[in-house]
Amino acid sequence: MSNKKVTIEPSKDYPCDIAIFKNYNHKLESGNTLNNFKVAFKTYGKINSKKSNVILICHALTGDQFITENNPITNKDGWWSKMVGKNKPIDTNKFFIIGINVLGGCIGTTGPKEINPDTNKPFNLDFPTVTIKDMVDVQKYLIDALNIDKLFAVIGSSMGAMQVLQWIIAFPEKICNAIHIAGALKHSSQNIAFHEVGRQAVMSDPNWFKGDYSNHNVKPERGLAVARMIAHITYLSEDALHRKFGRKLQSRDIISFGFDADFQVESYLRHQGKSFVNRFDANSYLLMTRAMDYFDLTEKFPKIIEFNNTINKHINYLVISFDSDWLFPTNENLEIAKILIKNNCKVSFIEINTDKGHDSFLLNEPEFHKAIKGFLNSKLDINDK
Amino acid sequence: MSNKKVTIEPSKDYPCDIAIFKNYNHKLESGNTLNNFKVAFKTYGKINSKKSNVILICHALTGDQFITENNPITNKDGWWSKMVGKNKPIDTNKFFIIGINVLGGCIGTTGPKEINPDTNKPFNLDFPTVTIKDMVDVQKYLIDALNIDKLFAVIGSSMGAMQVLQWIIAFPEKICNAIHIAGALKHSSQNIAFHEVGRQAVMSDPNWFKGDYSNHNVKPERGLAVARMIAHITYLSEDALHRKFGRKLQSRDIISFGFDADFQVESYLRHQGKSFVNRFDANSYLLMTRAMDYFDLTEKFPKIIEFNNTINKHINYLVISFDSDWLFPTNENLEIAKILIKNNCKVSFIEINTDKGHDSFLLNEPEFHKAIKGFLNSKLDINDK
Repeated sequence: MSNKKVTIEPSKDYPCDIAIFKNYNHKLESGNTLNNFKVAFKTYGKINSKKSNVILICHALTGDQFITENNPITNKDGWWSKMVGKNKPIDTNKFFIIGINVLGGCIGTTGPKEINPDTNKPFNLDFPTVTIKDMVDVQKYLIDALNIDKLFAVIGSSMGAMQVLQWIIAFPEKICNAIHIAGALKHSSQNIAFHEVGRQAVMSDPNWFKGDYSNHNVKPERGLAVARMIAHITYLSEDALHRKFGRKLQSRDIISFGFDADFQVESYLRHQGKSFVNRFDANSYLLMTRAMDYFDLTEKFPKIIEFNNTINKHINYLVISFDSDWLFPTNENLEIAKILIKNNCKVSFIEINTDKGHDSFLLNEPEFHKAIKGFLNSKLDINDK
Repeated sequence: MSNKKVTIEPSKDYPCDIAIFKNYNHKLESGNTLNNFKVAFKTYGKINSKKSNVILICHALTGDQFITENNPITNKDGWWSKMVGKNKPIDTNKFFIIGINVLGGCIGTTGPKEINPDTNKPFNLDFPTVTIKDMVDVQKYLIDALNIDKLFAVIGSSMGAMQVLQWIIAFPEKICNAIHIAGALKHSSQNIAFHEVGRQAVMSDPNWFKGDYSNHNVKPERGLAVARMIAHITYLSEDALHRKFGRKLQSRDIISFGFDADFQVESYLRHQGKSFVNRFDANSYLLMTRAMDYFDLTEKFPKIIEFNNTINKHINYLVISFDSDWLFPTNENLEIAKILIKNNCKVSFIEINTDKGHDSFLLNEPEFHKAIKGFLNSKLDINDK
């Protein structure tokens, strides 16, 4: 007999809600089982009476549920505040937005830094490896718990785009529209390589203690900062770096002939590294990068789209890439659009012209914003009347 | 009164020669002075009676004087053994090759791991910052000490290419031919960024001790390995990584759901990192990367080529790039060729078509080898008769 039970209540730690799942006995892809877990989520806007205006926004590697307005951890604007809000492209006057901290994350959802009920200590690396599928399965539990029958849209960029693809193949009947931004069917060899070096940086930090740093009251800060610095370079384009920094010096007229941050780009990266360690858990970073590395739908996605043809045909798809994104380049996004087209799905594909690289999805890109706004509003007319 | 003196003798530490410079009172670009220093060098082939067949090969970031045949440190082939040797493109039957470990290096030339005569301890980070100009100045002392009036050719790739540019502007009267491979007039913002992350990895290692690790009988091995892994990704192209590794698993059929090196690309990078720390000094690595970052001839080179027009016109130039090299892309190499052309210098430019990235200069690239061989042999006919 299953005693499955979910309760939803305000979080004690963050200004958001927590769904507490009990006796769910959920099997992860790794074969491990999660019996009890909690999911932190934040909503924006108002749900309509038909519950037909719900948009799930899936966050990227280091994102969280605080999509817009104030992020209580950084005390800055949420990561997609340029995109989501009143009168913004994803308009909270019209839509009810749900941001969910992914499984394995570090902002309230069950993950390595949360207390393991079996030991009363943080899970740390006892926490099982999670996959994109596991993240989406847990999101689906929450959507069900909220009694939402169908999502108006599921939207995600980067690791969020991977979640969108997983939603498309796992729960097509639950989605009206899907927006896939700057992603791919699989994580490439080069991307795995960059992630691996970041992980090695973390695991080389003597304060890592094989993931058990919290029991030593330290953090592998320096290793995690280096990992973030590496990743940050990949989020930008060479042109963006050149335009933004070039070889400009930082607070000095001539080079120091030493190892200070002479160049602005060095100072910028050091800042990126340092500020990251204040807001993110190293074990979660390891888990998230691994989830992306393991992601590979090159065989599954075309097969399922063909097989599920009828169900998937109901979805309107929008696939977006940025021409200067070398992490998830246009051709990898286009591949997804092509599979959908081949199976007579309704898909739009847009390549945004910008020199800002992968990070463009977070930035002020008018064409990008226009594309999302136009797509959503046109579908709202069809689905919501 | 100057008591300048140079003696040349076999090295006690390596199978090569050492030039010991005394009372040279050499001013470095940083303003520091090097009074006594030694330069480790290795020669291959025989010098002819006119000393007109001498080729100086300038090594890249982690290269050394052991260009071909056995490298006594790695016990593998020298770094350019595919290019240099009997009946090879740079043929030691015809040419007398000189390989010089650069100033600040770690294979016999004065650098941070050598003993500071003032303290009887290793210099470590008391060693002054060196620049590409400093490296070339020291090479020029050696060439003079060997009584070589004119180099048949100076050749270099990557950091070696930077040295070639410095030779061209500083000592044009000493060169007949110059081959510049996969370099640039300046180190780009993105390249500085990658170097900076590598340095941060080294300096974050608790065994670094602000560069004083040798006095603690340790090495910042993990940090240096991470630095090497980062750099190694940039030496390859995405296509090369994809072709070589793709998402292939290492010694297993299914993913491990953990942080072992599941993917071959991870295992490969870990190996690259580990084997590097056995052969290279971390402080030298910091110095070498800094020398590259500081390199910027964007203003000086065109001015000097224009000014020195008559002298530089005597030189035959060959500029080579690889189309998949994203560290020193074709356009940055082409810029150099264009400046030379504009000033009516004799220059050939070749872009080699390969998917192997920056590392192509070390690999079996028949077109590349043919270009070098053809260029050198055609000039030999002119200059050596």
